Amino acid sequence: MIETERLTRTLNPKTLAVIGDVSRTNYRWLRCMSTFQGNIYSVQIDPNEIPGIEEMGIKNYQSLTEIPEDIDFVLVAVPRVAANAVLKDCINKGVAGAAFFTSGFAETHVQEAIDLQKEFTDIARESGVAVIGPNCMGLYNPAAGVRFGEKQAVGFEGDTTFISQSGGHAGDISAAAYANGVPVNKVVSFGNGVVLESADYLEYFGNDEQTQFIGMYIEGLHDGPRFTKILKDVAKRKPVVLWKGGMTDAGRRATASHTASLAGSDKVWDAMCKQTGALQVESVDEMIDLINALRLLPKFTGNGLGVTGGSGGQSVAMADTFARAGLRIPDLSNESQEKLGSWFSLVGASFGNPVDMGSNREQVDVILDTLTADENVDCLLVQVRPPQDDDDDRERMQTQIDSLKRLKSTTPKPIAVIAHSPTPAHDGSAIADLSKTLREESIPTFISYERTANVIQKVLEYNQNH
Amino acid sequence: MIETERLTRTLNPKTLAVIGDVSRTNYRWLRCMSTFQGNIYSVQIDPNEIPGIEEMGIKNYQSLTEIPEDIDFVLVAVPRVAANAVLKDCINKGVAGAAFFTSGFAETHVQEAIDLQKEFTDIARESGVAVIGPNCMGLYNPAAGVRFGEKQAVGFEGDTTFISQSGGHAGDISAAAYANGVPVNKVVSFGNGVVLESADYLEYFGNDEQTQFIGMYIEGLHDGPRFTKILKDVAKRKPVVLWKGGMTDAGRRATASHTASLAGSDKVWDAMCKQTGALQVESVDEMIDLINALRLLPKFTGNGLGVTGGSGGQSVAMADTFARAGLRIPDLSNESQEKLGSWFSLVGASFGNPVDMGSNREQVDVILDTLTADENVDCLLVQVRPPQDDDDDRERMQTQIDSLKRLKSTTPKPIAVIAHSPTPAHDGSAIADLSKTLREESIPTFISYERTANVIQKVLEYNQNH
Repeated sequence: MIETERLTRTLNPKTLAVIGDVSRTNYRWLRCMSTFQGNIYSVQIDPNEIPGIEEMGIKNYQSLTEIPEDIDFVLVAVPRVAANAVLKDCINKGVAGAAFFTSGFAETHVQEAIDLQKEFTDIARESGVAVIGPNCMGLYNPAAGVRFGEKQAVGFEGDTTFISQSGGHAGDISAAAYANGVPVNKVVSFGNGVVLESADYLEYFGNDEQTQFIGMYIEGLHDGPRFTKILKDVAKRKPVVLWKGGMTDAGRRATASHTASLAGSDKVWDAMCKQTGALQVESVDEMIDLINALRLLPKFTGNGLGVTGGSGGQSVAMADTFARAGLRIPDLSNESQEKLGSWFSLVGASFGNPVDMGSNREQVDVILDTLTADENVDCLLVQVRPPQDDDDDRERMQTQIDSLKRLKSTTPKPIAVIAHSPTPAHDGSAIADLSKTLREESIPTFISYERTANVIQKVLEYNQNH
Repeated sequence: MIETERLTRTLNPKTLAVIGDVSRTNYRWLRCMSTFQGNIYSVQIDPNEIPGIEEMGIKNYQSLTEIPEDIDFVLVAVPRVAANAVLKDCINKGVAGAAFFTSGFAETHVQEAIDLQKEFTDIARESGVAVIGPNCMGLYNPAAGVRFGEKQAVGFEGDTTFISQSGGHAGDISAAAYANGVPVNKVVSFGNGVVLESADYLEYFGNDEQTQFIGMYIEGLHDGPRFTKILKDVAKRKPVVLWKGGMTDAGRRATASHTASLAGSDKVWDAMCKQTGALQVESVDEMIDLINALRLLPKFTGNGLGVTGGSGGQSVAMADTFARAGLRIPDLSNESQEKLGSWFSLVGASFGNPVDMGSNREQVDVILDTLTADENVDCLLVQVRPPQDDDDDRERMQTQIDSLKRLKSTTPKPIAVIAHSPTPAHDGSAIADLSKTLREESIPTFISYERTANVIQKVLEYNQNH
């Protein structure tokens, strides 16, 4: 087992070395790490590569052991034939941890590569070095400025940690989290996970005080019972959202050539999530939607939705979609109906639930207050159409935002917004702006009826069991 | 029954009158119709409204009967109390047809309004006037320049007609169709449908030579057996995509206050779609995805997908998603495996299916050709990541587009693109640009694994049954 302290040093490094970066990739790793807050070094022996590295203002050494200070985190980008030698250097240098971007091991299903991984694993496990990977992207720590992608934002602290066996998903999740206002604490991509695997990271971040929410993408487990035990313990204390790759035969074949994982049975996995109280998702979108909802929605345990903001047809579509997801759109109470009925114009409108406001838009505040106060309503969903490019539309949206701000400040009930547009690509930046503004008021937004229904249903089930 | 010729004149008008437009809405109807290709008139008796109308250069009359030429299409926007009198004027004038935007009838569930609708219906049915509505948006005919929304594009002919009981959905479908390159022939919104209803429009457009594809949104039917008979006949000749509102109890309550429809049983509806060969959808997105796929994909009847373009994690996600939808991601043939295996670098890559190209990107054309030629592949899906805002990214995408163009010109097999981004709102305009470019090559794009899997599965099932 890796000591906790060693892993903490690895994941929050103050000194860092990149081994084997090359001009062919325009020194991708050193450029990624240019935002690193501590001391950074390069290790490269090829004389053709060194001038380019030194031009970036980075000190290069011929060997890791020559670096004159202790190293917390090493990023290794050497070809696989050199991996074991570099690992031994890491041990000799006494680094806290190392992430091996290097791939081409057991996942290729070539005997020579399988043997290489076995040797690598044996050396690494004995050493006590916190080895991340191989065949991974390593670490994204925005506060420390450690990145694995050039577009990853830095300079902030977060409460949400993602653990992903896939580097591609780790990158996509990082980008989606940033775009959707989920503040990242750390993202760890661990690939073949020969030393530290899912269970180890889950245990570590389960005990990490800065991490309040955990999202995971997993392809396979070394030790199912151990993972289940840790998950059961962690999921009691903080929400754990799990995405399992390889839940189908076709997916399982793909995990084998991706991270050499044996993906196991989908039924076992489903049962484990139910038993431990973990939340299950199937995509990046769903992962981010769900964490957004868990972070921003006050706890609610009743499944009665109050819905407004659509036309008549949209009201029908929302009602059908939410009902299909197992949620209720209850009739409003007699009190609410009497309150609205005394003045509500029914011409081209309806104050059933969903409420189709029609020409009653000037009374939007009264409608929202009545709906929110209704005893049958546990959670309020307001559809807001993102503005197209004209000033009237933007003004209309600002009025809606003002209403929602006021409402949010007067009710403890959860409020979410459906930022629905029939032309989401065209309205992309308007949707992003609206979502950002509402998030600042702790109101999450979701971009389709289906995605809203799905996330509300999952949060509700979680709330009912925790 | 309305004569076909009369409905044809109504839907392809050469003369048009708007009755009851007002300054309070900034003359929304006359402004909508400013793109109309024929002669347009206003009918308004309120002296306060007339100067505003005449300022727009439109001739106003005190009564429909005073207009000195025959009128094909009338848009009625008077309050409900005046609806029956205006309907009588339409009859006296001998107009071909009239759409009644006017709402506040049976859908309000107020006795007075129900009585009013009954009287309206009796007069209308006897008259032979092609009455659209009431409680509807009427007609969108881009070639004739007839619109019900100020942002609807005009000046083109199309092969796809949408029939929608909901005005909101009619507007959303029109916008989504335009944004996604589905050329609209006509969109009819018919609301309470007291004279012409779903079955009538379906029969009409089933016989309309310009209409090759039909999409419908329906809340309730007057005569289920008649609709089924017509649908069975039409669906044999052209694809009919049906979206039924009110498939759940909550949705049924919403249809009652929207178009006064009795939505009927979902089981009956499901059975009817199966029996008639109609395609069933549940949202605007799905409607447009499906028509796009039907329009652009060459017919295929095998369910073997060849998939490429993702990272390892994305390959797993695609495999899982397509398998869940009932599709197959078969192993490649021995021949393909030998062909690729002789040179393919497996380091950080895989030529299983899905193919994760990794560092083999320079051989993209060979990989695509091998995949397409494979006997196990019936349909090719290529993931393209829409470019973020930098030149390298745009150049990368152009290379991919060039590859796809070349491929499309060399194979009769269907090719679709998954324009997948973890930050779709941010990449909205890039997704729209990419999709437009590829549509010009008859390659449809879909924006998530789930939506792609769903649409491919539905088209496949349709192809297998037709």
